[in-house]
Amino acid sequence: MLNLFNNSRRGFIKTAAVGTIASLSIPQIVAAASTASKGKKIRLEKDDIILFQGDSITDAGRDKTNLTANNNKALGTGYSFLTTCELLNKHPDKNFTIYNRGISGNKVYQLADRWDNDCLNLKPAVMSIMIGVNDFWHTLTNGYTGTVEVYKNDYIKLLDRTKTALPNLKLIILEPYFVNGIRPEEAKWHPAFDDYQQVAREIAEKYEATFIPLQSIFNEAVKQAPPKYWTPDGVHPSMAGASLISHAWLDVVKG
Amino acid sequence: MLNLFNNSRRGFIKTAAVGTIASLSIPQIVAAASTASKGKKIRLEKDDIILFQGDSITDAGRDKTNLTANNNKALGTGYSFLTTCELLNKHPDKNFTIYNRGISGNKVYQLADRWDNDCLNLKPAVMSIMIGVNDFWHTLTNGYTGTVEVYKNDYIKLLDRTKTALPNLKLIILEPYFVNGIRPEEAKWHPAFDDYQQVAREIAEKYEATFIPLQSIFNEAVKQAPPKYWTPDGVHPSMAGASLISHAWLDVVKG
Repeated sequence: MLNLFNNSRRGFIKTAAVGTIASLSIPQIVAAASTASKGKKIRLEKDDIILFQGDSITDAGRDKTNLTANNNKALGTGYSFLTTCELLNKHPDKNFTIYNRGISGNKVYQLADRWDNDCLNLKPAVMSIMIGVNDFWHTLTNGYTGTVEVYKNDYIKLLDRTKTALPNLKLIILEPYFVNGIRPEEAKWHPAFDDYQQVAREIAEKYEATFIPLQSIFNEAVKQAPPKYWTPDGVHPSMAGASLISHAWLDVVKG
Repeated sequence: MLNLFNNSRRGFIKTAAVGTIASLSIPQIVAAASTASKGKKIRLEKDDIILFQGDSITDAGRDKTNLTANNNKALGTGYSFLTTCELLNKHPDKNFTIYNRGISGNKVYQLADRWDNDCLNLKPAVMSIMIGVNDFWHTLTNGYTGTVEVYKNDYIKLLDRTKTALPNLKLIILEPYFVNGIRPEEAKWHPAFDDYQQVAREIAEKYEATFIPLQSIFNEAVKQAPPKYWTPDGVHPSMAGASLISHAWLDVVKG
């Protein structure tokens, strides 16, 4: 099941086109990942409604009582906020409306439960989604019994429903990632979690989404600073990690 | 008293070197401002301690019970946070220690009151300071009786004290700004507040600080989107405005 991922991984390294991978700067890592993802860049248009969806990494402490667009409290302090600040600054002529509807702890089926309010009714032109780490992680910690097949089927059902309601939606799928060298139960994550990542990649291809290979990006970043520099617990990004994700996101769009 | 400011303003426009100013992109505005500021770029070194000081614009809702470095709650959600995320992401090898000690409502004398704890004892290698809008604003709203001479003398005393304790400090002074077209009492700000801006500029020259001409930057930005897009109340930046300040900051340093 991991062939495609491995192929893409080789593509990522090849794209770097430098003598040693260890010498890549962070902007080079982001650019190489964007090229390796093979997705076409998404053109952001005037009046676009942009939606960030996902779990705690997307949520990042947002005020869930504040549902307004382009609002710093409503956006949290993660990559969604950083990306929004950058988009609003760089494109003052575009009149973007930007929402964050990530919720900490969510798995795919929990997105489905709130999808009318938190996606379809917002009528996004662009949806960015990062989901999957809890679909696996909670099988270790919360007694969750969902399998990788459940993740895949739930994700497909969610995106079928989304594409039916919003046929022109431009979709960005962020790979769920896990950074080694931090968590004591690390061995339990592999190869099980790699299969979830493979599903995310296959789903991106199926729906012609732009895929952001965050695992490859973090794998390169940890050559430059210890794993905890990028994510204190292996899952949630530090400020540096959130900025890394944000740059990867910005690298797959054009204004 | 406004000659230098006016000269620099002409310098700013000349630096832009394009047919019409209205066609400048936001990155061009930032770059032109950096060139016009005439300050040399500050080189950030490994292990640098970087301190953001100022008022509410710097504070930006930070958790004042959290005094740790490189912490998102301790940094607020303004330009200090955005700048820190970018610095930590782009320079994973530099081991920066970054603090925000801005406090909402502060004037220069209030910085002085807390300067040992909130500056000198932190032993910054780089200090960024934006102060002055309340030194004027509170004369309109709070019955504050300080004059522009008080602002100047307080600021000089503060920086003399700082340079004595930290002779190698690299100093970045951000111009206090006020955006027209929003506040009903706008006429009361001019020319009085312009004199405060001139003081900030003169002080930057006196201490060989790198000066960031935020007024010029916001003056150009409002040609691209309405004033409220950049600052809802004329003083505090929106997310777009915070990003604008952050980019201007990042443009005067090199890694």
